[in-house]
Amino acid sequence: MQDILNTITTEIYRQDDWGQVAQYIPELTSVDPRQFAISVCLADGQTFSAGAADKPFSIQSVSKVFTLVATLGRVGDQLWSRVGREPSGTSFDSVILLEREQGRPRNPFVNAGAIVTTDALLSGRVPKLALAEVLGLIRQMASSDEIYINDAVAASEQATGSRNAAIAHYLKSHGNLQNAPDLTLGTYFHQCAIEMTTTQLAMAGRSLAGLKHAPRVISQQHARRVNALMMTCGHYDGSGDFAFQVGLPGKSGVGGGILIIAPNVASIGIWSPGLNGYGNSHAGTRAASMLTKAVNWSVF
Amino acid sequence: MQDILNTITTEIYRQDDWGQVAQYIPELTSVDPRQFAISVCLADGQTFSAGAADKPFSIQSVSKVFTLVATLGRVGDQLWSRVGREPSGTSFDSVILLEREQGRPRNPFVNAGAIVTTDALLSGRVPKLALAEVLGLIRQMASSDEIYINDAVAASEQATGSRNAAIAHYLKSHGNLQNAPDLTLGTYFHQCAIEMTTTQLAMAGRSLAGLKHAPRVISQQHARRVNALMMTCGHYDGSGDFAFQVGLPGKSGVGGGILIIAPNVASIGIWSPGLNGYGNSHAGTRAASMLTKAVNWSVF
Amino acid sequence: MQDILNTITTEIYRQDDWGQVAQYIPELTSVDPRQFAISVCLADGQTFSAGAADKPFSIQSVSKVFTLVATLGRVGDQLWSRVGREPSGTSFDSVILLEREQGRPRNPFVNAGAIVTTDALLSGRVPKLALAEVLGLIRQMASSDEIYINDAVAASEQATGSRNAAIAHYLKSHGNLQNAPDLTLGTYFHQCAIEMTTTQLAMAGRSLAGLKHAPRVISQQHARRVNALMMTCGHYDGSGDFAFQVGLPGKSGVGGGILIIAPNVASIGIWSPGLNGYGNSHAGTRAASMLTKAVNWSVF
Amino acid sequence: MQDILNTITTEIYRQDDWGQVAQYIPELTSVDPRQFAISVCLADGQTFSAGAADKPFSIQSVSKVFTLVATLGRVGDQLWSRVGREPSGTSFDSVILLEREQGRPRNPFVNAGAIVTTDALLSGRVPKLALAEVLGLIRQMASSDEIYINDAVAASEQATGSRNAAIAHYLKSHGNLQNAPDLTLGTYFHQCAIEMTTTQLAMAGRSLAGLKHAPRVISQQHARRVNALMMTCGHYDGSGDFAFQVGLPGKSGVGGGILIIAPNVASIGIWSPGLNGYGNSHAGTRAASMLTKAVNWSVF
Repeated sequence: MQDILNTITTEIYRQDDWGQVAQYIPELTSVDPRQFAISVCLADGQTFSAGAADKPFSIQSVSKVFTLVATLGRVGDQLWSRVGREPSGTSFDSVILLEREQGRPRNPFVNAGAIVTTDALLSGRVPKLALAEVLGLIRQMASSDEIYINDAVAASEQATGSRNAAIAHYLKSHGNLQNAPDLTLGTYFHQCAIEMTTTQLAMAGRSLAGLKHAPRVISQQHARRVNALMMTCGHYDGSGDFAFQVGLPGKSGVGGGILIIAPNVASIGIWSPGLNGYGNSHAGTRAASMLTKAVNWSVF
Repeated sequence: MQDILNTITTEIYRQDDWGQVAQYIPELTSVDPRQFAISVCLADGQTFSAGAADKPFSIQSVSKVFTLVATLGRVGDQLWSRVGREPSGTSFDSVILLEREQGRPRNPFVNAGAIVTTDALLSGRVPKLALAEVLGLIRQMASSDEIYINDAVAASEQATGSRNAAIAHYLKSHGNLQNAPDLTLGTYFHQCAIEMTTTQLAMAGRSLAGLKHAPRVISQQHARRVNALMMTCGHYDGSGDFAFQVGLPGKSGVGGGILIIAPNVASIGIWSPGLNGYGNSHAGTRAASMLTKAVNWSVF
Repeated sequence: MQDILNTITTEIYRQDDWGQVAQYIPELTSVDPRQFAISVCLADGQTFSAGAADKPFSIQSVSKVFTLVATLGRVGDQLWSRVGREPSGTSFDSVILLEREQGRPRNPFVNAGAIVTTDALLSGRVPKLALAEVLGLIRQMASSDEIYINDAVAASEQATGSRNAAIAHYLKSHGNLQNAPDLTLGTYFHQCAIEMTTTQLAMAGRSLAGLKHAPRVISQQHARRVNALMMTCGHYDGSGDFAFQVGLPGKSGVGGGILIIAPNVASIGIWSPGLNGYGNSHAGTRAASMLTKAVNWSVF
Repeated sequence: MQDILNTITTEIYRQDDWGQVAQYIPELTSVDPRQFAISVCLADGQTFSAGAADKPFSIQSVSKVFTLVATLGRVGDQLWSRVGREPSGTSFDSVILLEREQGRPRNPFVNAGAIVTTDALLSGRVPKLALAEVLGLIRQMASSDEIYINDAVAASEQATGSRNAAIAHYLKSHGNLQNAPDLTLGTYFHQCAIEMTTTQLAMAGRSLAGLKHAPRVISQQHARRVNALMMTCGHYDGSGDFAFQVGLPGKSGVGGGILIIAPNVASIGIWSPGLNGYGNSHAGTRAASMLTKAVNWSVF
């Protein structure tokens, strides 16, 4: 496995096109796109890494997976009365389907759906407590206490997040937001600003992959359903293509991170901050494809 | 396995709500919705069935899987320049996304995409030959020669298929139809009018499941990709929900059939003609969910 | 003319169906829908009224006409780089076209366009001054100082205006809002909360109708263009129907008011708070149709 | 008036940008865009012309006005149960709104609405008779028998009209087409292929303008309503702008013709085959604006 990861890393560093770093979060625009890391946790408990696997990066939308796990733990299947489970066919921040479906987001991984999920997690307490729960859960899943929120990134997002503010107010207008838009958005932006290394990310995915020794934070049924959602909706408008090319459930973030689950076999964390046209990590998607071909891990 | 199928069948026949038979194909409106069959082919070569597993039914959109296999065999990955691989987020016969994406259908399982796939299979020869290829492929995959096209159903569809005619002309207007709309539509309607039993359908899925002894009609890579497409797009606007509930790739048809693939483990054919709100078999979807829970076959 | 207005009023009071009072502004829900008033200013300077023509009502979207006049006076045709002049084909608070056209509202009479217009009027000063300008302009146009903003209605709208907040943030995300969303929205809600009688409204329309003795607040060219916009976009998704039935440019508000311009002939104010399915005054639209038939004032 | 028309013509011939000739009808692509003609019929019966006012051109969508007049004469207001009267907010051949509104076109001037209007005119007889009625009506309105259908243009359109075929089949699928798509489309393409000179077009508009001595083919009420529809929907997605700039109801065609009505004052025919971005005549729109400014004919 170490050899495979080394080969992939060498290959990635040879590429000319690293994609473009996300432009809409000021704090992230200055990141050098020519960075890469990959980590794999296997069923037997071993972890392998290559590249800058100890460098924390902004997990952004990958956090939606963990918030979903936390929210399902808190409110259970009631969540599905407020959020759907279907791919959206549109970009991650579109409001078109939201209008057509009267404020019920298509799935928990488009921004609107993640904001509703965060809102459900927040209800009845202050943002600080909800954030503490998400962060605590991630630390537990990753078996690491060295995971933090980057407040500068959160503030940067808050200052420029007009599109997400529009979505939150829109949800409110349809009665699908229980808290004040500012509170829910504040929580959402902070959860997106969590930073992790690929090692931590791979470790945190073990529970979803159902690996032995993984912390028991989610039932097998819930884990499978989260994986199913990652498969059909985890890469926004590029989800079908990711399923087609990689054959494993995964969730990407505009920070360049990707969490990939090979059920019963492995949990994978990848990072490279340059993005492709869908807003998913360019080198990360390539590496995922190379890895699954090399080890033949497709679920299909 | 036989016990499980018997239990499911008994349970299904106890239900009050069988859904509604498809209304838009005249020949199918008279079918009694209170029918059910299920067949399972296992990796070891054994096949189990329960219910009306020897009764041929109209496979309709399930045929899109076989046409895709045939077309990939004929034109290979060139197909993807004309059809996408993303879930559509809209119903199976919508033209909205088609307009937004200038005549390139979202995936080969929405009607527009299947019409383009059929068009690619047809090019350079008469419809009779293209149909012979699809039918021959299905017979080979099912290891059965007793599979036929129901001409009355094809004629019925042709007479009333205005929506599909609209889609074909629309594709033509964007230069994404190589043959005359009537020829491509004629081929498409006949392929949809193929009739199979659940036993034959389960047998025909073995190659996609990669089971031993299955006819070698498709490479593992192509099979996996077809399965990925079934997972993300196989149930139209209910694809996410099917992945969420059943956890296996599947393709449904308005005749009430569902083909489900458990990679490396089994191939499953289910039929019950009453449909749910998404246009997928009501009892069939329930049975799929019951089976995968009983045998724990989710890919996730 | 007085006879005609009396006949119309009698006829209106005989109707059973008064439509429904706007539900989404709490302060307006308690208004009795069974109220009606009509006022007409003629070219010769005479004014005629019938019904509750001295009762102030919330002009709501009718204010968009006056804000447009004020903004054209302030920034001139530069406004059109930020707002279009086409009917929208969708409801007044839709965001679908806004997404498709990347934050440039279709016209100044849909909410998004009015918010941009208000934003242009506001820039460079505090809301209080912009509001003073609009209110001053209306008083001048109406030749009446007894026109006020109802702060309770403004506050009520502000508290519940999530859809408009969504639109403002959305515009901001596309760079088409110069001020903080809260400031522009506050100004917008207060301008909508202006109260006028039908007499005042008819008087205020004289400048747009180009009547003799009307205050000179707008050039003939600008007046004609405002009238053209009222004709094509003044009744949201019912604009075509209003043009078809009434044949005069008009602008409606959810408070039940309608301002109608018969160029060179008359200015008309109508009010009845019950709304039809498009969100336009039910009795008001009927009365407009009756009046123009009686006096044969269609521009066509 | 003759001086004004001469000045406009001289000015137009000085322009560099003539727009682009319509590309999608093969027979029309070879037309030289640098042509211009304008004709005006006044209330007193006089007619003035300048430019190539005796050269017949393909009236294309301008024919929709005459078909509407004929159909209103035949089925009256029943037509409005099948076609709306609202601007569409989308391009002339869009199917998006058609899907959202379940097969009821927005207005009789988008292609879908014109096809339904033609279908209503056709029902119960053969295409030849329906066409004879439209052609006869136009000849009567224009007081000229020298108006013909160009069969080569009709055939050219039929051969390439996939988008219109898609629309017709789509309408059929919603039950809003009474005749076979081919019959209705054949009639529609032939009506679009009528050729007129600007003199004939101006003459044909006299009845809609309500000019004295005009043939009595339509009631004042119907004429006004047709004019209202021309104002709100006559220039597709550029209708608002035409109303804003020109201030008169008008209907354009992709052949470069524009019919403009100044109620009670004049009827105007303009032609220049180069089109602007909305598909309306570039020089024609300019000339219309120049004329109405010169003579101050805005209805507003």
